[in-house]
Amino acid sequence: MVRGLSEKSFTNRRLKMAKLREECGVFGIYDHPAAANFTYLGLYSLQHRGQESAGIVSTDGEKLYSHREMGLVTEVFDEESISKLRGNTAIGHVRYSTTGSSNNKNTQPLIMNYEKGELAVGHNGNLTNARILKYKLEKGGSIFQSTTDTEVIVHLIARSKEKTFLGRIIEALTECRGAYSLLFLTPIGLVAARDPHGFRPLVLGKIDNSYVLASETCAFELIGANYIREIEPGEILFINENGIRSFDPLPKKQHKYCIFENIYFSRPDSFLQGKNIYQMRKNMGKQLAIESPADADIVVAVPDSGTPAAMGYAEQLGLTFETGFLRSHYIGRTFIQPQQSIRNFGVKLKLSVIKEVVNGRRVVVVDDSIVRGTTSRKIVKMIRDAGAKEVHMRISSPPMKFSCYYGIDTPVTSELIAHSLEVEKIKDYITSDTLGYLSQEGITKAVTNYNKSLKKGANYCFACFDGNYPVEITGEKASHQQMELF
Amino acid sequence: MVRGLSEKSFTNRRLKMAKLREECGVFGIYDHPAAANFTYLGLYSLQHRGQESAGIVSTDGEKLYSHREMGLVTEVFDEESISKLRGNTAIGHVRYSTTGSSNNKNTQPLIMNYEKGELAVGHNGNLTNARILKYKLEKGGSIFQSTTDTEVIVHLIARSKEKTFLGRIIEALTECRGAYSLLFLTPIGLVAARDPHGFRPLVLGKIDNSYVLASETCAFELIGANYIREIEPGEILFINENGIRSFDPLPKKQHKYCIFENIYFSRPDSFLQGKNIYQMRKNMGKQLAIESPADADIVVAVPDSGTPAAMGYAEQLGLTFETGFLRSHYIGRTFIQPQQSIRNFGVKLKLSVIKEVVNGRRVVVVDDSIVRGTTSRKIVKMIRDAGAKEVHMRISSPPMKFSCYYGIDTPVTSELIAHSLEVEKIKDYITSDTLGYLSQEGITKAVTNYNKSLKKGANYCFACFDGNYPVEITGEKASHQQMELF
Amino acid sequence: MVRGLSEKSFTNRRLKMAKLREECGVFGIYDHPAAANFTYLGLYSLQHRGQESAGIVSTDGEKLYSHREMGLVTEVFDEESISKLRGNTAIGHVRYSTTGSSNNKNTQPLIMNYEKGELAVGHNGNLTNARILKYKLEKGGSIFQSTTDTEVIVHLIARSKEKTFLGRIIEALTECRGAYSLLFLTPIGLVAARDPHGFRPLVLGKIDNSYVLASETCAFELIGANYIREIEPGEILFINENGIRSFDPLPKKQHKYCIFENIYFSRPDSFLQGKNIYQMRKNMGKQLAIESPADADIVVAVPDSGTPAAMGYAEQLGLTFETGFLRSHYIGRTFIQPQQSIRNFGVKLKLSVIKEVVNGRRVVVVDDSIVRGTTSRKIVKMIRDAGAKEVHMRISSPPMKFSCYYGIDTPVTSELIAHSLEVEKIKDYITSDTLGYLSQEGITKAVTNYNKSLKKGANYCFACFDGNYPVEITGEKASHQQMELF
Amino acid sequence: MVRGLSEKSFTNRRLKMAKLREECGVFGIYDHPAAANFTYLGLYSLQHRGQESAGIVSTDGEKLYSHREMGLVTEVFDEESISKLRGNTAIGHVRYSTTGSSNNKNTQPLIMNYEKGELAVGHNGNLTNARILKYKLEKGGSIFQSTTDTEVIVHLIARSKEKTFLGRIIEALTECRGAYSLLFLTPIGLVAARDPHGFRPLVLGKIDNSYVLASETCAFELIGANYIREIEPGEILFINENGIRSFDPLPKKQHKYCIFENIYFSRPDSFLQGKNIYQMRKNMGKQLAIESPADADIVVAVPDSGTPAAMGYAEQLGLTFETGFLRSHYIGRTFIQPQQSIRNFGVKLKLSVIKEVVNGRRVVVVDDSIVRGTTSRKIVKMIRDAGAKEVHMRISSPPMKFSCYYGIDTPVTSELIAHSLEVEKIKDYITSDTLGYLSQEGITKAVTNYNKSLKKGANYCFACFDGNYPVEITGEKASHQQMELF
Repeated sequence: MVRGLSEKSFTNRRLKMAKLREECGVFGIYDHPAAANFTYLGLYSLQHRGQESAGIVSTDGEKLYSHREMGLVTEVFDEESISKLRGNTAIGHVRYSTTGSSNNKNTQPLIMNYEKGELAVGHNGNLTNARILKYKLEKGGSIFQSTTDTEVIVHLIARSKEKTFLGRIIEALTECRGAYSLLFLTPIGLVAARDPHGFRPLVLGKIDNSYVLASETCAFELIGANYIREIEPGEILFINENGIRSFDPLPKKQHKYCIFENIYFSRPDSFLQGKNIYQMRKNMGKQLAIESPADADIVVAVPDSGTPAAMGYAEQLGLTFETGFLRSHYIGRTFIQPQQSIRNFGVKLKLSVIKEVVNGRRVVVVDDSIVRGTTSRKIVKMIRDAGAKEVHMRISSPPMKFSCYYGIDTPVTSELIAHSLEVEKIKDYITSDTLGYLSQEGITKAVTNYNKSLKKGANYCFACFDGNYPVEITGEKASHQQMELF
Repeated sequence: MVRGLSEKSFTNRRLKMAKLREECGVFGIYDHPAAANFTYLGLYSLQHRGQESAGIVSTDGEKLYSHREMGLVTEVFDEESISKLRGNTAIGHVRYSTTGSSNNKNTQPLIMNYEKGELAVGHNGNLTNARILKYKLEKGGSIFQSTTDTEVIVHLIARSKEKTFLGRIIEALTECRGAYSLLFLTPIGLVAARDPHGFRPLVLGKIDNSYVLASETCAFELIGANYIREIEPGEILFINENGIRSFDPLPKKQHKYCIFENIYFSRPDSFLQGKNIYQMRKNMGKQLAIESPADADIVVAVPDSGTPAAMGYAEQLGLTFETGFLRSHYIGRTFIQPQQSIRNFGVKLKLSVIKEVVNGRRVVVVDDSIVRGTTSRKIVKMIRDAGAKEVHMRISSPPMKFSCYYGIDTPVTSELIAHSLEVEKIKDYITSDTLGYLSQEGITKAVTNYNKSLKKGANYCFACFDGNYPVEITGEKASHQQMELF
Repeated sequence: MVRGLSEKSFTNRRLKMAKLREECGVFGIYDHPAAANFTYLGLYSLQHRGQESAGIVSTDGEKLYSHREMGLVTEVFDEESISKLRGNTAIGHVRYSTTGSSNNKNTQPLIMNYEKGELAVGHNGNLTNARILKYKLEKGGSIFQSTTDTEVIVHLIARSKEKTFLGRIIEALTECRGAYSLLFLTPIGLVAARDPHGFRPLVLGKIDNSYVLASETCAFELIGANYIREIEPGEILFINENGIRSFDPLPKKQHKYCIFENIYFSRPDSFLQGKNIYQMRKNMGKQLAIESPADADIVVAVPDSGTPAAMGYAEQLGLTFETGFLRSHYIGRTFIQPQQSIRNFGVKLKLSVIKEVVNGRRVVVVDDSIVRGTTSRKIVKMIRDAGAKEVHMRISSPPMKFSCYYGIDTPVTSELIAHSLEVEKIKDYITSDTLGYLSQEGITKAVTNYNKSLKKGANYCFACFDGNYPVEITGEKASHQQMELF
Repeated sequence: MVRGLSEKSFTNRRLKMAKLREECGVFGIYDHPAAANFTYLGLYSLQHRGQESAGIVSTDGEKLYSHREMGLVTEVFDEESISKLRGNTAIGHVRYSTTGSSNNKNTQPLIMNYEKGELAVGHNGNLTNARILKYKLEKGGSIFQSTTDTEVIVHLIARSKEKTFLGRIIEALTECRGAYSLLFLTPIGLVAARDPHGFRPLVLGKIDNSYVLASETCAFELIGANYIREIEPGEILFINENGIRSFDPLPKKQHKYCIFENIYFSRPDSFLQGKNIYQMRKNMGKQLAIESPADADIVVAVPDSGTPAAMGYAEQLGLTFETGFLRSHYIGRTFIQPQQSIRNFGVKLKLSVIKEVVNGRRVVVVDDSIVRGTTSRKIVKMIRDAGAKEVHMRISSPPMKFSCYYGIDTPVTSELIAHSLEVEKIKDYITSDTLGYLSQEGITKAVTNYNKSLKKGANYCFACFDGNYPVEITGEKASHQQMELF
C-alpha cells in the first residue's frame, strides 16, 4: 500500500470518505527530569502513525502544560516550546485523523477542566458507539467542543459520580465500545488503558527507574528504554507517587490484535506480540512465494512498505531482489500540477522507476496490500513503460474486502476493489500479467508459526479480510454515510 | 556517506567549515506554456542536489518574474506563486550553499538590473578565482549585494563592453576559472554554459517541441521529456526565437567529470556519460567484493546512498542482502536533544537498526564513502550494540583525502580522516573488525569498463582521492581559512 | 483618564488586577445581503469599546460561520475572511477583557454546539453571580472550555429543559445577575437581551428594511442606518423570518444606566438616553467651571477624553482653550524602553506637551477622571517642566472611590486614589496648585437638566462614586482577590 | 489635508502617481550606550514623516548591524531586534516612499559593501538628477539593486577615487542636485549632510555628551536631548573619535526651506528656523481670518492637521471653536468595503461628524490645504448632511498648483485641483458656500513676522504655490510620466 502518494490525492480521499477513522500514536513517561524531551523523541519515533498533528501535555504535579499543533513532530516543537512543558511527567500524541475534521481543535492530547480539576487524554483507536454516547450526553446538557470521539470519554468522566479519578475512568470505559489504547494525565498521576480486545498496541517500558508507555517498541529503542511487556487487553494501569498498579475491571473479551499492524502499520524495527515486524513481513513474503510463485528474472518492491516481503519472496525462490523504484523523500503537503498539461503525475511524484533495472526483464513486484487498485494499476504501467517484458504483482496479505472500524484508515467498503471484484478481475484492472495474494491461512501461519506463544489463529482481528467484526458498529455499519454528520 | 544526519550536526559543520562550496541543481525550459510548472517539477526531481533554497525566474518576453525562498521546492512554491511566474520560458535553481552564508539574499536564480536590462542566472559549481575577480571589480567601484561567487559573473557581464548579450557572457566566462554549469535568462532568450572541464553535469532534452535543460536526466523523466545529449564541456548554447545555436568559444581543456556525481551525488535513476547511475554503483559494489571480500553471514547497507553497492557486493559474493537499517523520513530542519541527558542521539535520529536482522550475525555494512569517520564509528557501534558478532565495513570508493573545490560540499582537507590516517588506523577509529575501500583503479574499471564510450581513466576528476586538482585554486589552497572572509 | 498610556503599563496593571471585568461592544444585523460587511464596519465604529480581540459569526440559515482573532478589527479581518462569513445575518463582538485571560479561546462571539444545534453569543457586561453558577454547573458534569462568564450563560441554555430557543434563553437569564447586553445567533434567528437594570447600552436601528443592533449609535451612523430606539432594560427581542417580537419576562428593576458611559466610555458622537455625549461632556465642563473656577490664562485638555469638558470649562469662564498636548497615533502593543537609561518614558510616549503653549502661563488642565493618580501626577509634571507658572487640575466627574462590577475596567477599590485620600491630599500627590472635581449633584444636573426626558437622578448607577451597588456581588465584594481563581 | 483617508485610496493614489517622491525622517546618535534604543525612540517621534517602513543600522566600531522592515516603528522592532543592534553609534530611518516601489529592498538605511568596507545611509529628500546619474553609472557597469535615488549616492561613493571617506562623500554630493538631508554611518564614524538649499530640516542636539541628529526637534524632546542648532544648508558634519567637525565644501545656494514643513508636515511641537510650528499654524489661521473672514456661528477643524489654524481663526474673529469631527485612531492598512453596497465610505472611516455640533449652524471648516478637492468635497457634504445651514471652507495656505520634487508627496501637477481651476470654481466643486485661501504674502507674514530672525520672504521654497522651482528637474518636469520607468 503506497501511503500518501501525493497530498492532492490524500485530500480528495479524505473529503470523499466517511469521516470515521483515526490513526494515531501515543507516548507517556512518569517522573523523569527529561519527561517532555523524551516524549518528543518518542513521538518522533511514532511519527509514521500520524503525520497531521502532534501534541504533548506535561505536569509538574500542580498544573498541566501543553503544546499542540498541526504538523510533524519536528515542525511542531522547538526548544522554546519544549522548555515550557514543565514537570517530570508527560504524555504525547501524533494523529492522522479521519474521525473529526482536520483542524486545530481536534489535536490531541485533549485537555479539559472539569469539576475535579485538569485532565488530559491521548487516544489511539476508535469508539464504535461514540455516536450514541454523544447523543445521550448532549441530551443531558453536555456541550461538545471538538468533533473527536475522544471527547465522549472525557464527558463520561466529568459526569461520573465515582469518587476517585480511577473510579471515574473505569465507569466511563465501561460504557465505551470498540478500540482504544489510552493515556490519561492529571497533575497527580498517569493512567494507561487498553480495550478488552486489544485492537491497538500499547507497551510498557522503563528508563532510569521511570516508567514509559508507547504505541510501539521502536519509541523505547530511540531513547534507550527497556521493554517490559505489553499492556494486556482490558488492563488499566495507574502510576502515581505510590508506584504502579494494574487493574482488570472491564468485562473479558477474546483478544483481537489488529493484523494490519503486522502487515503494514507498525514500524519494521518494532515488535508485536513479542516478535519483530520486519521478520514477520519477510516470512509473509516467503509464504507468498510458496503459495504464489512466479517465473521471473527479478523481484522488486513497492517501497518502503513492500520491501521486507519482496526480499522474503526473492529469497524463497532464489530470485534476484533489485531496487526497481526510488521513493522521494521530499514529497510535501501540497503539490501543484501543471494545469495546461494533460499528464497525470500521481504516483510518479512519489516513486521513480529505475528503467535500466526492469528494462527487458520479467518482473515480480511485491506490495503489502491493494486498496482501490488505482495505485497498483499505475505502478504496473510504470514498470511496463520502462520496458519490462512481464509484470507479476504479488500482495503479502489477503484481499482487503471490508472497511476497518477500529483505527486503521481504510476507505468505505464499497471503494475497496476486492469487495466487488474477484482476483482475476483485479488482475485485469491493474493490467498485470498475473496477480497473487497471500491466503488468510498463509498469513496466520506466517505470524503464528513464527510466533509460538500465540494460540493458533484465535488472536487476530481479520475483519478487513473476512468481515467478521468482533465489535458491532452501533447502527451504522449498513450506511456509514450517516457517520459523516457526527 | 550519511548526508544530513541531523540538522544540528549540519549547522555545526557549516559554521566550522571554510565557506567555500556549493551544491546545486539547475533546470530551464524555453517556450512552453507550462514553463513555470515544469520548472517546478524539474526542481522537485533535483531536490537532492540542494535542500536549502529554491527559486524560479520566468519571462514573458518583456519582463522577468521571480519567486525565491529558503526551503524545499514543495514548501517554497504554491499555486499562487507559480501562477505569478508568467510567460513561456523559465529557469530554476535549488541550492545547498556553503559559499555564501545561508540567507535569503543568496537564493538563486540571481537577478540583476544592469544597463542592458534584466538578467537572471542559476549556477551549479564553484569559481576558483572568485576572490581575485571580486577584488578587482570592487577596485573599479562595483558594489556586491550577495556573498555568492555567482554575483562575480553578473558584474563581469555588466562591465563588459561587448555589444551582444552572448558576447558579454563569453567575455565574462573567459575570465572565470573552476566549475560552472550555468543557465542565463533574459526576456529575449535562454543561455546554457558548461565549463571547459565539464565538472558538473548539464543535459539537454525536448518536450513538445520545447527545449529543456537540467542538471540530471531524472528531471526529464518526471515531466516526460526526451533526453537529447549532454551539454559538452566548454559549450555555450543560445536559445531564442530563432532556434537553438551552439558555440565553442572557450579554450579547450581535458574533460574532468566529477567522479563523486557517480559515487554519491546524482540520483540513481539518472544517467551520466550515457549510463545509469544505479548500475554503476552496483558495479562498484561488485568490484569492491572482488577487491575486498568478507567472510560474513549478511550484507547490509547504510541507506540510502550505500544500498546499490551493498546489493552488488552481496550478489558478487552470493551473500544475503538484508535491511539492517531503517532511514527516518521525518528528520526535520532542527532537532532538540534532551539537555538533562548524556545520551547522544546523533545518527540514531536518522537511522534505526533492526536488531533481529544483525543479532548474532557476521555483518558486512556497505557505505559509499567515509568523510570524518564519526558517522561510520556510530554505525559500527549501533550494529555491535544490536548483537552482531562481527562488523566488516566496506566503502564503494577510494579513501577521501582531499577537499573538493569544484562544487561538492566536503569539509576542509584537514578534517578528512583519510587525509591523516592509514586504512588500518581508520578501521581502529571506527572500531570495525575489517575495513575495505575500493581502489582508484577499481572504480575506474567499474565506471569505464561498464561505459565503453569513455576513454580509459582520462575523463574523471579524482582530486578528492589523489589531490590532482585540474584547476589551480588561486592563492588559497594552502590556507582556505582565509576564504571565510569572502 | 488616559487609557493605555503604554502597553507596558497596561500589561502590568492587568496582572496585578483581579481579573474581574470586561469592556466590550456588540453589533448584529438580521437579513441583509451585506451582513458580514456591515458587522465589520459596525465593529470598526465600536473599536473604542475593546481593542483586544474581534469576531464575527454569520449564518446562512443552515450553519454558523465564524472568524475571531486577537487584534484590532482592521487587523483581524480581510476580504478573504469576510467573504467566508456567508449568509445574511450576523453578530460581532469587540473585547478588552479582564474577566478571563487574554487569549484566543476567550474571543467572542462564543460558539457552542449543543443538543439543539449551533448557538453563538456576544456579551457586553459582567455577571455578578458567575462564580456560583459555574460551581453548580461543574458539579452537574459540565465541562468549561473558556474562562469567560459568558460561557456560564451558554451552559445554562444547554441544560435548560424548555422546548423553545427563546424559552431556554429566558430560563438561563432568569438565573443571571449583574450587567448584560447580549446578542444570540442561531441559524434560525437573532435574539437581543438587556439586563433589567440596563447597565450597558444596546440600541436598535434599521437599514434597508433590515434590523440592526449595536452597543452605540455611532455604529449606525457609519453604515447609514436609522436609529429607532434603545432596547429597554429587561427587554428580550427576537428577530426571525416572522419578524421582530419583544418580550418582557424578567423581574422588573430600577433603571441604572452606567454614568461612566456618559463621562468617558461611549464615543462623543453617540447618543445615550436620547442625547449627544459630546454635548453632555461639554455641559459637565461648564458645570465644573461653575463649581470650581480657576484664575488662569489658558485651559488645556488631556486628550482625547478630556477635550469636550475642557472646551466647556473654557467657554463658561471666557478663557482661551489651547492645544497643550499632542496625542500619539502610533502607540503600539509593545514598547521597548532603554535599559541603560534611568529615564521614565511612561506617559511621554502617549502625550507630548507643546512647550510654547504653556510656557510662562497659568494653566488649567481638564481630564475626565483620576484613577490611581499616577498619570495625573506625570501630566502635571510635564506641564510644569514645560514652564507653566501654575497648574490647576480639574476633573469632570466626582472622585472615583469604588471599583466597578458591571463592565467598566477599573482597578480594585484599594488602588483608587480617591478611596483612600481626600481631595486636598490627592492635589498634594499629583502636585497641582489646585484640584477640583465635579460634584455628584453637578453631574446629575449636567446630564438630567440637559436631558429632560429622564426622571431626576433616579436612573443612573453612581456606584463608582458613592458605593451604592445596585446588584450584590455574590460573596466576593469583600475580597475579590479570590476572583482571580475563576 | 487629510492624509491617508483609507489605505484603499492611498494605494490607488500611489499606482496612478508618478513614482517620484519620498517622505522620510532620519535620526542618528554617536557614542551612547543606549544608541539603538534612543534611535528607536527618535524614530517613534518621527513616525509622522513616514509610516511605510522603519530601519536602524548600528555599529560597534567593527561591523554594521541592521534591522529594517515594512511597518510602523513599534511593529518593526522588539526587544530582541533592538538587542541585536550592537554598539554605541546608530542611524535610523522612517519612510513613506513614492520614489521606488513599496517593497522591502527599498527600506532604509541602505547598506552596501564596497571596496572600502561597509557603509549605511539614510536619506530624506529627493535628488532631481537621479535619473541621469543612474544612466551614467549603469553605462559604467554599475548594477542597481534597489529603485531608490539613494542608491545613486552610494554608487557615486563606490566609484570615487578620493582617498578618505569624507572625500568620497563630498565628491558624490557635488554631483547630486535637489533635496537631501543625509546621515551616513561606517564603523568609524557618522556623517550628516544637508543640501545647499536646505529644503528638508536636519537638527543637531546633545544628550549625556553624545551628539544626536534628527529631522525634527520633537525627537530630542522625547529622549530628553538638548537642541543645539540646525545643520546649515550645504554643511557636512563629521563625527568620529576625534570629535565633531563641520565642513562647507559645496557651492553656496540661496536658502529654500520647504514651507510645507511649516504648514503641514512637521509635528506641531517641533520648531523650525527656531520657532514653534503650532504657534506658526495658529498665526496662519489668524492671518487667514483677517484676509478671509466669515459670518458664521462656529469654527471647526479638519483634524488633526487643520486644528491649530482653526483655533487661530476662531480666536481672531471671536467665534466659538468646536469639535465638529472625530478622527478615528483605528484606521488600518487595509479596509474592506461592502461589495454589495453602493455606499461610498471614503472619508467616513477616517472622520465622524458630531451632528449635534453642526446641526442648524453656520459652520466655518478649516483645513491646511486642498489637493485634489475630493476629500474637501466629502467633508463639506458630511457637514451639510449633518444639518449645517452654511458651510464656509477656509484653507490656511495658498492654492496648491504645482507638484513638489523635493521630498513632499504631492500628486502630479495635473491632478492638483488648483492647477486647473480658479478659487471660485473650486468652491463650486467642493460645494461650500464660500471658500477662502491664505495668500502667499499672508503666509510669508505669518511665518516671517513671527520669526524675526529670518530675512523677509527670501528663505522659503514656495514652488508648490507659485511654480518657481529653485532646482531644475533634469529633463522631466514637462512629462514626469517618464519618471515612472526609473
